[in-house]
Amino acid sequence: MSRLLRVPAGERIDLGRFDPAAIPAGPADKATGRAATARLAGQLGSLQERLYAASTAGDRRRVLLVLQGMDTSGKGGTVKHVIGLFNPSGCRIRAFKAPTPEELEHPFLWRVTKALPQPGEIGIFDRSHYEDVLIARVRELVPRGLLGRRYSEINRFEESLADDGVTVVKVFLHIGYEEQRARLLERLDNPDKHWKFNAGDIEERALWPAYQRAYELALERCSTDAAPWFIVPADRKWYRNWAISTLLLEHLEAIGPRYPEGDFDVEECRRRLLAT
Amino acid sequence: MSRLLRVPAGERIDLGRFDPAAIPAGPADKATGRAATARLAGQLGSLQERLYAASTAGDRRRVLLVLQGMDTSGKGGTVKHVIGLFNPSGCRIRAFKAPTPEELEHPFLWRVTKALPQPGEIGIFDRSHYEDVLIARVRELVPRGLLGRRYSEINRFEESLADDGVTVVKVFLHIGYEEQRARLLERLDNPDKHWKFNAGDIEERALWPAYQRAYELALERCSTDAAPWFIVPADRKWYRNWAISTLLLEHLEAIGPRYPEGDFDVEECRRRLLAT
Repeated sequence: MSRLLRVPAGERIDLGRFDPAAIPAGPADKATGRAATARLAGQLGSLQERLYAASTAGDRRRVLLVLQGMDTSGKGGTVKHVIGLFNPSGCRIRAFKAPTPEELEHPFLWRVTKALPQPGEIGIFDRSHYEDVLIARVRELVPRGLLGRRYSEINRFEESLADDGVTVVKVFLHIGYEEQRARLLERLDNPDKHWKFNAGDIEERALWPAYQRAYELALERCSTDAAPWFIVPADRKWYRNWAISTLLLEHLEAIGPRYPEGDFDVEECRRRLLAT
Repeated sequence: MSRLLRVPAGERIDLGRFDPAAIPAGPADKATGRAATARLAGQLGSLQERLYAASTAGDRRRVLLVLQGMDTSGKGGTVKHVIGLFNPSGCRIRAFKAPTPEELEHPFLWRVTKALPQPGEIGIFDRSHYEDVLIARVRELVPRGLLGRRYSEINRFEESLADDGVTVVKVFLHIGYEEQRARLLERLDNPDKHWKFNAGDIEERALWPAYQRAYELALERCSTDAAPWFIVPADRKWYRNWAISTLLLEHLEAIGPRYPEGDFDVEECRRRLLAT
């Protein structure tokens, strides 16, 4: 899966050539896909436990899943359905909104640095420092020159994370223009979903081509060996969940965390315990 | 369930009279219990979503689950199996270890205050400020006079939380002396569990009666109307999971969170959206 979805470093990207409803590999329909995702829970949980256990003996390795995508692309749904497969105690989830006044006073990487997973954890960013080259570009929130430098700042930052044992998995949730309309309408048509809707979403949607271009640039300039981007077709929620679960599984397997050995005398401890 | 397990304010507690393997209500065997717990996921998730949705419209209400209990009593297992039923994005989990030098420089409530759930969230403390009247009492980490004042400080603190919209649910995971030995032996006998074991656990176990007494005092002095304690029989893991899930369900139902109304013109938004 990783190889199929990965954006090769330096490659030019035309998102129009990626079908957001594609099923590039794996289960072919919803029922099979859901069952396959549910079946991954055991392996994911077991690898996560090993990762955490290893950290108690000094292993600094951890995972950071970065989720980006247009409104309604399913960032929240991914957290619910994919991260929901893991033990919540080892997950550190952070949703980034518009920066606060305090955050704006700092370099743009400041707030993400504070939210990084600790060794042994699986960190999840629902939006991230990429907003600073996405909405910041589309809405011209910073001068062009400053914006241009951010891509290499991001690459250096992510390389330093990789050097510190962080496996960075960056996922672009790719949905189609029609699908977004359908999902926004669904929110409008269901009063229980009104809290998820905000009128500004329609204005953002009007900037669709500019956002797609901003994503293309981020994918082109920031898919590195240290921290590659993956394009996940996200029109089908069940497929998105299966694909991201599988991506995480493959990365956890590549880490290959192992339970640490105890630093105590098992036999002596057993004797002492049985005497109590 | 709440009424059955709740420690009445001011009541004297003799933990020896509570059977840690009891099944005071609900499913009577493991298979039924597990299925019943799994069936609660839908309701729990739905109430959690309403709670979170309400917070986006200014509702400050939230839940704080405090988990306390002897080593191996299942605090971690509760997070995995009970909190695992919720959407992880709305859960704020904090495990408290021995205080750091920085934490020791502050009043004992400082570190818990920083870890409180935000409005709309479900907070989980794996250990808590109660350690400051438990291990602190048993190990005589502070002078007796200071210790004695902590109970009323805790009560005032928790009352202020309740005033601010926090539903505090404090759970004592009650396991038996024999059951703890069995669980420690299990960790010793399985190399994959050695990372969970530490030789100091045996020394803590030798202080069992002092810890039970410290728990009794905490339950007696800090079960208030604002923040009651619940004693959950925890020798049977499946029962513990069902009981705590049910406690959370009852408290969430009592909060009765509701989806907020949208502050936009649905028809106008629909027209604008269909025009895109």
